[in-house]
Amino acid sequence: MDVRAYAATSPTSDVAPLTVARRAPRPSDVVIDILYCGVCHSDLHTARNDWGNSMYPVVPGHEIVGRVVGVGAGVTRFKEGDSVGVGCMVDSCQHCAPCEHGYEQYCENQATYTYNGLDRHDGTPTHGGYSERIVVSDRFVLKMPQGLDLAGAAPLLCAGITTWSPLRHWKVGPGSKVAVVGLGGLGHMALKLANALGADVTLFTRSAGKEDDARRLGAHRVVLSTDDGAMAAVAGRFDLIIDTVPYVHDLNPYIPTLATGGTLVLVGYLGELEPALNTVPMVMNRKSVGGSLIGGIAETQEMLDFCGKHGITADIETIAIEEINGAYERMLKSDVKYRFVIDMASLKAGA
Amino acid sequence: MDVRAYAATSPTSDVAPLTVARRAPRPSDVVIDILYCGVCHSDLHTARNDWGNSMYPVVPGHEIVGRVVGVGAGVTRFKEGDSVGVGCMVDSCQHCAPCEHGYEQYCENQATYTYNGLDRHDGTPTHGGYSERIVVSDRFVLKMPQGLDLAGAAPLLCAGITTWSPLRHWKVGPGSKVAVVGLGGLGHMALKLANALGADVTLFTRSAGKEDDARRLGAHRVVLSTDDGAMAAVAGRFDLIIDTVPYVHDLNPYIPTLATGGTLVLVGYLGELEPALNTVPMVMNRKSVGGSLIGGIAETQEMLDFCGKHGITADIETIAIEEINGAYERMLKSDVKYRFVIDMASLKAGA
Ligand SMILES: [Zn+2]
Ligand SMILES: [Zn+2]
Ligand SMILES: [Zn+2]
Ligand SMILES: [Zn+2]
Repeated sequence: MDVRAYAATSPTSDVAPLTVARRAPRPSDVVIDILYCGVCHSDLHTARNDWGNSMYPVVPGHEIVGRVVGVGAGVTRFKEGDSVGVGCMVDSCQHCAPCEHGYEQYCENQATYTYNGLDRHDGTPTHGGYSERIVVSDRFVLKMPQGLDLAGAAPLLCAGITTWSPLRHWKVGPGSKVAVVGLGGLGHMALKLANALGADVTLFTRSAGKEDDARRLGAHRVVLSTDDGAMAAVAGRFDLIIDTVPYVHDLNPYIPTLATGGTLVLVGYLGELEPALNTVPMVMNRKSVGGSLIGGIAETQEMLDFCGKHGITADIETIAIEEINGAYERMLKSDVKYRFVIDMASLKAGA
Repeated sequence: MDVRAYAATSPTSDVAPLTVARRAPRPSDVVIDILYCGVCHSDLHTARNDWGNSMYPVVPGHEIVGRVVGVGAGVTRFKEGDSVGVGCMVDSCQHCAPCEHGYEQYCENQATYTYNGLDRHDGTPTHGGYSERIVVSDRFVLKMPQGLDLAGAAPLLCAGITTWSPLRHWKVGPGSKVAVVGLGGLGHMALKLANALGADVTLFTRSAGKEDDARRLGAHRVVLSTDDGAMAAVAGRFDLIIDTVPYVHDLNPYIPTLATGGTLVLVGYLGELEPALNTVPMVMNRKSVGGSLIGGIAETQEMLDFCGKHGITADIETIAIEEINGAYERMLKSDVKYRFVIDMASLKAGA
């Protein structure tokens, strides 16, 4: 079936209307009418080939919320009318050790990403949520909890799970001291989720003036990372620091704020750690620097259910799909509080 | 009381005979006649002020094994004639969170090191094991297990516990896959201990020709880290890599050999990670780089008891104390299999 979509056709082209094919549903497939799709930094990076691996046309979008409009003969968990979500992955090998542990994101045979991937069965390109409909294997479809605003819930599928997974892996709960570096799409979700998990939550930021917003989002305190005195006052404090900054930055000022045995986990930055990381405070206090990528499917469902129970959604600005290129420019300037979400009615209306 | 010792009196002087004072025993003190003292890289670095914090005279030595020759009135755990050990610490604050968890090495008020430290009670300098006798608070005295060669057991007090602590912290046991980088004093202990814990053990080395020795010490395989094919063959394999290399080196080739969720822990290198660590494989597979420092006192006793049960000691070359400066030169060239231990009878004989 042909569906209307928005796609980048080259690294320098705007994202623009394009018709793409969706496969006929297999017995295990769910056909989803897309209602909302969040706008992630990865969308922009892939549209512009910033990582050098883009296969055009690229239909971005992996924070997808929609309604089931059809299911394959073998699907029992979903039925027409269900509110569902699709995140960053639509398939994985299902038999390697990470897959068996529910870490499909770390699949040794590489998970199939929601866009800019190749279907494992027929080799066709995958296309994301900037489109009317998507067809996804039932194992990778999430149930949206009752009562959540569906537009606000869309960013949970990437920004939410990306911060939830390290919070859970490093066992954050009541009594934990957590800090978040950076207040964007990921950072604002990290504040909300860490707070709801019962942790004591701190935001590190380089910009004064974020205090009120940070506190509203769940931070118990805000520390200006450019203020040496403020940094010294939180020395040895944090069990976990979730660093959401997507560009190269100096980690060395944060390491002394970790408690003995603490971990700084990078969820936003892919590249070389410059300036060089100094091992002295790591060795002297058994501190670690790690990384984490989105989360597994079961873990994503757990996060959605948790958000349903606690009434957690992202703070969003809803846009029409025609506004996507301008939204990218604003996103690059961190001029969004805190996530753009495309109302897909705009795509259908634009027919 | 005055005791004979060997000390460095400046960064450029040889280690040479010197008489130093030991305090009169307090009620909680144990007086130890030193039989053997291992020679650690830290001894040389402190003697030469490589870390810029040396307080001269420096009497090095923190792999101390001896016999109890006196105890204070409040000491109940030790009596004259007991075989005992002293490692890198002789005191700590005893009330901070790390101390309460048995991590005295991470004491927030800084543990008192066995040498180049200041006594917490009277502010006098601490002097290490290159001496006839030492006076140590009973909480920091270890019981040597029956049946171990005492000279070979001396290096357990630093090289042993430094590798044991991360093995235990990262829960190595049967089924674990462990790699060790570097085959020196620390590395050879890591092979022995990881093997005795039931792990599958690999040695990474840059020098061919270490295979037989590595296998004898407990490695199940040896991988030449300069051989790209051999490195690729162990991609995604290790739960834990213990990196014992004491100088700056590139960690990037090792990260891909970690399994999903694995950790590379630095126990030998203090300084900046150059070339820059690349976060891509860390984020893409939830891998971490951490550090670890010696181990706590209870953990050290646990390690000694384990070594007693499994008959584990270091492979040593015994030297007379007059040979110490030459031993340092050989140690700098990694020309020792695998630890020098001073027979302290040579100090007494030199009177
Ligand atoms: Zn994303
Ligand atoms: Zn897999
Ligand atoms: Zn040592
Ligand atoms: Zn303490």
